[in-house]
Amino acid sequence: MQIDTARSPFARLKTIQLDHVHLDQGFWSGRQEINRKISLKHAYRKLHDSGNFNNLKLAIGTGEGEYRKPVFMDTDIYKWLEAVSYDLVNHPDAALEAMANEAIDLLAAAQQPDGYLNSYFQVVEPEKKWQEIAMGHELYCAGHLIEAAVAHHRLKGKSRLLDIACRFADHIDATFGPGKRDVVPGHPEIEHALVELARECGEPRYLRLAEFMVDQRGHGKMIGWTPFDTAYHQDRVPVREAQVVEGHAVRQMYLLSGVADLYLEGGDPSLLAAAERLWQDMVGRKMYVTAGVGARHYGEAFGEAYELPSDTAYCETCATIANMMFNWRMLAITGEARFADLIETALYNGFLSGISLDGQRYFYVNPLLSNGGIERPEWYGCACCPPNVMRQIALLGHYIATTRQGGLQVHQYISSSLEADLGLAGQVKVRLETPYPWQGKVSLTIEETPSAPWELALRIPSWCRAATLEAGGSLSDVSASAGSYARLTRAWRAGDVVELKVRLEPRLIQPNPRVDAVRGSMALAYGPLVYCLEAGDQPAGVSLADLRLDPSAPLQAAFRADLLGGVVEIKAHGWVEDMSSWKGTLYRPLPAGSPALESVELTAIPYHTWANRGPDQMRVWIPLK
Amino acid sequence: MQIDTARSPFARLKTIQLDHVHLDQGFWSGRQEINRKISLKHAYRKLHDSGNFNNLKLAIGTGEGEYRKPVFMDTDIYKWLEAVSYDLVNHPDAALEAMANEAIDLLAAAQQPDGYLNSYFQVVEPEKKWQEIAMGHELYCAGHLIEAAVAHHRLKGKSRLLDIACRFADHIDATFGPGKRDVVPGHPEIEHALVELARECGEPRYLRLAEFMVDQRGHGKMIGWTPFDTAYHQDRVPVREAQVVEGHAVRQMYLLSGVADLYLEGGDPSLLAAAERLWQDMVGRKMYVTAGVGARHYGEAFGEAYELPSDTAYCETCATIANMMFNWRMLAITGEARFADLIETALYNGFLSGISLDGQRYFYVNPLLSNGGIERPEWYGCACCPPNVMRQIALLGHYIATTRQGGLQVHQYISSSLEADLGLAGQVKVRLETPYPWQGKVSLTIEETPSAPWELALRIPSWCRAATLEAGGSLSDVSASAGSYARLTRAWRAGDVVELKVRLEPRLIQPNPRVDAVRGSMALAYGPLVYCLEAGDQPAGVSLADLRLDPSAPLQAAFRADLLGGVVEIKAHGWVEDMSSWKGTLYRPLPAGSPALESVELTAIPYHTWANRGPDQMRVWIPLK
Repeated sequence: MQIDTARSPFARLKTIQLDHVHLDQGFWSGRQEINRKISLKHAYRKLHDSGNFNNLKLAIGTGEGEYRKPVFMDTDIYKWLEAVSYDLVNHPDAALEAMANEAIDLLAAAQQPDGYLNSYFQVVEPEKKWQEIAMGHELYCAGHLIEAAVAHHRLKGKSRLLDIACRFADHIDATFGPGKRDVVPGHPEIEHALVELARECGEPRYLRLAEFMVDQRGHGKMIGWTPFDTAYHQDRVPVREAQVVEGHAVRQMYLLSGVADLYLEGGDPSLLAAAERLWQDMVGRKMYVTAGVGARHYGEAFGEAYELPSDTAYCETCATIANMMFNWRMLAITGEARFADLIETALYNGFLSGISLDGQRYFYVNPLLSNGGIERPEWYGCACCPPNVMRQIALLGHYIATTRQGGLQVHQYISSSLEADLGLAGQVKVRLETPYPWQGKVSLTIEETPSAPWELALRIPSWCRAATLEAGGSLSDVSASAGSYARLTRAWRAGDVVELKVRLEPRLIQPNPRVDAVRGSMALAYGPLVYCLEAGDQPAGVSLADLRLDPSAPLQAAFRADLLGGVVEIKAHGWVEDMSSWKGTLYRPLPAGSPALESVELTAIPYHTWANRGPDQMRVWIPLK
Repeated sequence: MQIDTARSPFARLKTIQLDHVHLDQGFWSGRQEINRKISLKHAYRKLHDSGNFNNLKLAIGTGEGEYRKPVFMDTDIYKWLEAVSYDLVNHPDAALEAMANEAIDLLAAAQQPDGYLNSYFQVVEPEKKWQEIAMGHELYCAGHLIEAAVAHHRLKGKSRLLDIACRFADHIDATFGPGKRDVVPGHPEIEHALVELARECGEPRYLRLAEFMVDQRGHGKMIGWTPFDTAYHQDRVPVREAQVVEGHAVRQMYLLSGVADLYLEGGDPSLLAAAERLWQDMVGRKMYVTAGVGARHYGEAFGEAYELPSDTAYCETCATIANMMFNWRMLAITGEARFADLIETALYNGFLSGISLDGQRYFYVNPLLSNGGIERPEWYGCACCPPNVMRQIALLGHYIATTRQGGLQVHQYISSSLEADLGLAGQVKVRLETPYPWQGKVSLTIEETPSAPWELALRIPSWCRAATLEAGGSLSDVSASAGSYARLTRAWRAGDVVELKVRLEPRLIQPNPRVDAVRGSMALAYGPLVYCLEAGDQPAGVSLADLRLDPSAPLQAAFRADLLGGVVEIKAHGWVEDMSSWKGTLYRPLPAGSPALESVELTAIPYHTWANRGPDQMRVWIPLK
């Protein structure tokens, strides 16, 4: 999940590693603190209780009882280890360190002498190793091991987990490849992991193996049993020929992350063209307003163009995360704000809804409409999402800014202190202070700077209608830069302060009329946040289904410190429709007269905070009258 | 599927058997003729080609090759045999008769000495007999055998198939029941079949067995492996406690048919109350405007209340058929027009869309919106629907009219000749002549009558805004009877003519605003027919998604003999929306200006005729501007 584009030849923007980014007091530091103090330890207990650690012990010979499925249980450990590795960089914690070492000890002991490591196939079906490539998830597990190992090595400087990962990667490289066995991983993940491993180790073999895996797709080479079709496995057409995002959403997004990573290293324009084409298809036809993807429960899959139902939306938390991973790589390649915009939408909406405010409960599926009865469970039988959320929160600092020769680009407005090398004589140190996303003021203080001039680029969000930038006593209107970057090039001095003011105000979002599912409805938003109604905030006894929004009335936004840990609430005028004239029927002839409406005040909260006060009715898209 | 309520103590209305109903030239006789000449013979070939007959031969010991799944392949034969039995009543056909006898010979030879008969378990898993009740479908197969046998005996007067069925039923009765084994059939079907068998044989044991099976539900007694939940199997709660229709739609509707049948024989008010409650839930919250049911592909299941997406609608043809079966029984119980109304809606829409105009291709799934690419295949690997359509068309005469002491009730306006016993001295013979559903005139001629007075009841469809009834020179406005029956009681004389005129005109249907999926849209209808747009009928190069309907402009209907075998076409005024201002995006802020619209004429065809000219885009619900 990490990405180090510092030496990638085709990266326009370079990554600032996490040890050079410290989150300061603000919206996200609070989330990181809960992640550190609550979630990562909660996960450790769950990995014990759910049998993940015991599965490894069974492989070692010290386990008890039966193997606990699914077959990719090892990945929960890997993602958690990756999250812990990120978190320990800036926040040493002896207890977490010990937990991580316990896991690494188990992995070291479980690994076979030939480098193979997969608790399921070692314990349950040793004769099936590398036979069930479609659904066996061995390469998917290997990919997550590699990602954890790279994070652990890069940030902690420790090679023990990296050695395990390299031995497994070497085993895989000895098994699959040109002149060896064909392979199409049933669940993409290892591709971008191998690219990262190649970056970390400076070993081009891993890069070539990733290329081989991507190139093999779409030629009918999938091996092993699967209940799903080739589109599900991203194997219907060769990657470069793909015209649309399709099939299993997480698989599609992980694959595109790998494709973008391969472009970053090799510069093959046909890979970038495919990634761009599929991005356009997703963003223009198949993405929810929350940046969630995957319209269908069956196959956890993309639907057809404009098939975006609110109630049966899938929007797996892992898919939103994978969407951010893909977009982060596209941002590194292009430097274009649209990718950072999408990451912002995902972070504050489809991603953050995946975790409860208390950090102990998780959504797998993130619908945009609930008729009630939906709450976040503490864990899942298939628990891919919770540790994926944890590693995402732990590496958040990563998304704030990037560099290029003579330039610093700020993408996400998160209170933090950054240190970056712009290729000039001397480091750049800056401090970002902001009450974002509740208020739109961002103060950026230059704390250290080379004497040579450099460019500061600040993303002006695409939803922004008015923004000003003040630097060195001069104020400029940068509203026209919405959807791109406001840029200031000068010889900065320590102590310089740049102040960006993005107007945050409640607004209405209209859906494309081709989306049948939300026709005649609007969504409320405030800055990067998509809003929703929960029934408990509305007049008593009213079903959310019967509320109508008045799009012509002014919207009121106010911060409420007492609500949901402190959020901006939106008030809107609307009506409740009296449904009695329908007499319990579903259909009736026209003309039927005007609906009977009673004026009401609607109260909306940020979508990501829903279902934190019980399993209430919820809806993002509010019908007009 | 047949039902003989003639001796049912709790039937308000009595069935007229098919040998007393002859379809005359008209809409449905054409369908029956295609069924007879094309479909039933097409099915015979498919039953050979798909291995159904060979499966039975494998059970006998004369088959070749492998068993061909699914496990309920026998039912395709049974449903086809049932259809053939109905059809032969009024249309002797030596070739069809020989085909049916060939099948019966195979069944007789395959049946075990103990009465057991199921090719799958006899051939493939003999050790699993009666062990996989959840998914094994043995009792489902038995139910269809019984239905075929009852039809064959009742209408053909032949006992050979009935003997096979009774021997199997006796075997089942010896295996399951109080003091024997518990049993919850994984797929309801045998329940109403056993009630019919009890009626046909005058054997109360079969009735008690059906009661036992219904009463066992909802107590955690399902046996055998299943990937589905208890709701899918109609086993989540006891039948009498069920509040909502849920789970697999065909299973739910077959179960309710059995429940209604048990009420017809035993009069248990708690059964009728449950059936009525679930009917209300279905009709008021979970049924498509086509009378299709089952909103979800996953589990072929009912969705939540108001979850009625058009594109991903399931609406299995078998579910619409099962819906008619349930409603037919409710009509017999109550005599209320709402049940006959629903049957009419199903017949002309969700059911009839299941078969192509040429009688050789079949829909399993009947969506209300297609983005193109959907056509009826000739047959299915799981071919439950095609022979179910065939038996439905073959027994259509059944739905036309019923009797009660001193009364004849006409429910469906189909050209036909009927002979009925109203419990008076002498038979009633009537002839119905009508160009329905294209024109609304129905002439009913009394050809023979007892001298005693009797009541003629004519259903005035609920959608009808104006109707007149002329009898004996007096004309009366019966518009107020829409949704119930216009009733005439008099001493009829042979030669009397009653003329009903139902105004047929195009109209708009508005959906309940709680149905998010079709908000801001209207459907077109004409009489009982729901209409749809196909792209090929609209201005060239326009996507159906961009068309808007003008609900204030007059609608024009005209019969077009050259179109789709002769249909009434509806023309409406509308617009095409220029989507270029969206620039390929899915969401945008308000205000965004008015949509750019260009006036166009929209052309609609009956929904059931869609996809007969290629796999075009189609939509039933048309957005307003």
